[in-house]
Amino acid sequence: MEMISSVKCFGGEQRVYRHASTSTGTDMEFAVFLPREALDGFVCPTLFYLSGLTCTWENVMTKGFPQMHAAEHGMIFVAPDTSPRGEDVANDEGYELGQGAGFYLNATQQPWAQHYRMEDYITKELPALLLESLPVDEDAIGITGHSMGGHGALTLAIKNPNLFHSVSAFAPIVNPMDCPWGEKAFAAYLGEDEGQRALYDACALIKEHGWEGDILVDQGMADSFLEEQLKPWAFEAACREAEVDLTLRLQGGYDHSYYFISTFLADHMAWHAARLD
Amino acid sequence: MEMISSVKCFGGEQRVYRHASTSTGTDMEFAVFLPREALDGFVCPTLFYLSGLTCTWENVMTKGFPQMHAAEHGMIFVAPDTSPRGEDVANDEGYELGQGAGFYLNATQQPWAQHYRMEDYITKELPALLLESLPVDEDAIGITGHSMGGHGALTLAIKNPNLFHSVSAFAPIVNPMDCPWGEKAFAAYLGEDEGQRALYDACALIKEHGWEGDILVDQGMADSFLEEQLKPWAFEAACREAEVDLTLRLQGGYDHSYYFISTFLADHMAWHAARLD
Repeated sequence: MEMISSVKCFGGEQRVYRHASTSTGTDMEFAVFLPREALDGFVCPTLFYLSGLTCTWENVMTKGFPQMHAAEHGMIFVAPDTSPRGEDVANDEGYELGQGAGFYLNATQQPWAQHYRMEDYITKELPALLLESLPVDEDAIGITGHSMGGHGALTLAIKNPNLFHSVSAFAPIVNPMDCPWGEKAFAAYLGEDEGQRALYDACALIKEHGWEGDILVDQGMADSFLEEQLKPWAFEAACREAEVDLTLRLQGGYDHSYYFISTFLADHMAWHAARLD
Repeated sequence: MEMISSVKCFGGEQRVYRHASTSTGTDMEFAVFLPREALDGFVCPTLFYLSGLTCTWENVMTKGFPQMHAAEHGMIFVAPDTSPRGEDVANDEGYELGQGAGFYLNATQQPWAQHYRMEDYITKELPALLLESLPVDEDAIGITGHSMGGHGALTLAIKNPNLFHSVSAFAPIVNPMDCPWGEKAFAAYLGEDEGQRALYDACALIKEHGWEGDILVDQGMADSFLEEQLKPWAFEAACREAEVDLTLRLQGGYDHSYYFISTFLADHMAWHAARLD
């Protein structure tokens, strides 16, 4: 694991690391903010943030403004990439498939199956790497994300409650089996098997597995993807059916951008901090 | 004045406007954050933020994170561009002269004098335009800025104490008559006349005009431009000589980036809010 940059902010350090990933078979980069407490060697609660389509670690670290809140809560903040990348990695002309659009799953279909193993990367390799090298508190890891990353946060938390102890999301794709983004991506990565697809659909998963804690979701009502792609009411209905304690905040006037995320990220980080305490 | 975008954040609105500028003879764009109070029509204290070399309004609005603090203080935040722009506008291959590098002055030399009239734009045209169209409190306008924009904030405030009632800066160019950035720009824009140059040098101006209030300057000590370009101790000495109340905070470990600015912008905005109250 090679540190490729480090910059001081809010009394802590934002670092970017690169490492050869055994999950994806490519080099992967991620960013991490370490609050002062972590630099002093104390184990800290840690929040994973999964980004949306087209993003890298950079979007949230430059436009989401997590550092101030992470410093306030003494929390480590981790921003992975959204897919494997490279000339030898399969890709697609659309922004919703291929590089920048890994959907946090393990692909079963060619030409994707070789490198697109983001589920393994986020739930196994990256936590192990972090626990080995940074003062992450193993019993206090939460996860959140935006759009495709909200899908990733919800699905990976529901399937891994022993790894992720709190979960929230911003404008998540909650029902990829039934929206254009998800249909295209799942057809390519997972093929036609409905059972495979249901392993990566938050609505299906919450009904099967439930969730012991509560869940926080923020959704902007001026989000241009609301009706066709995001449909948070599908997750609301699924949580009601599964008797899961969901707080769904439909925020009037907010769009899908980082202006929406930065507005409410302080709430999410305080919410995770309280649950990881 | 045409509104070309508007997005909701922190309960307010971030807007971008375009207008034909009589000062520069070009179209100019600026961004403004309006807190909820301004949207409700109440006049609000207002902070101008002048950006550094190569920047537009966009850098601080996406990476500086002023919106949260502006919402907290019920403050309007205005981010102008750093120069006139366009195919017909003189330019230079270097990043420190020409488009993106207006130095907030009125150029006297060709080919710059026609369009490079940023002093008039920031101190006359833009305030008039804002006062006419937005609920800016004329008696509660402050100014801050970064690097070249810190130079702009200091010089324009010192020369216009009836317009700008509070001033602060991040890593400002304080003595452009005696640093490579300033020497190149001033030679082009202002020629060899030392008197002209002194009209745009914060160290010279503070000794001539003084400043009735106090001044806040933050400077990162890991800033790669510290020794050659910024030299805050020159301004410290000038303020001491002029008996001006300067708070100069030399921040260990911080660089010249927006990670530095965003770390301390909350302090500056609270500081301006207290003085504009």
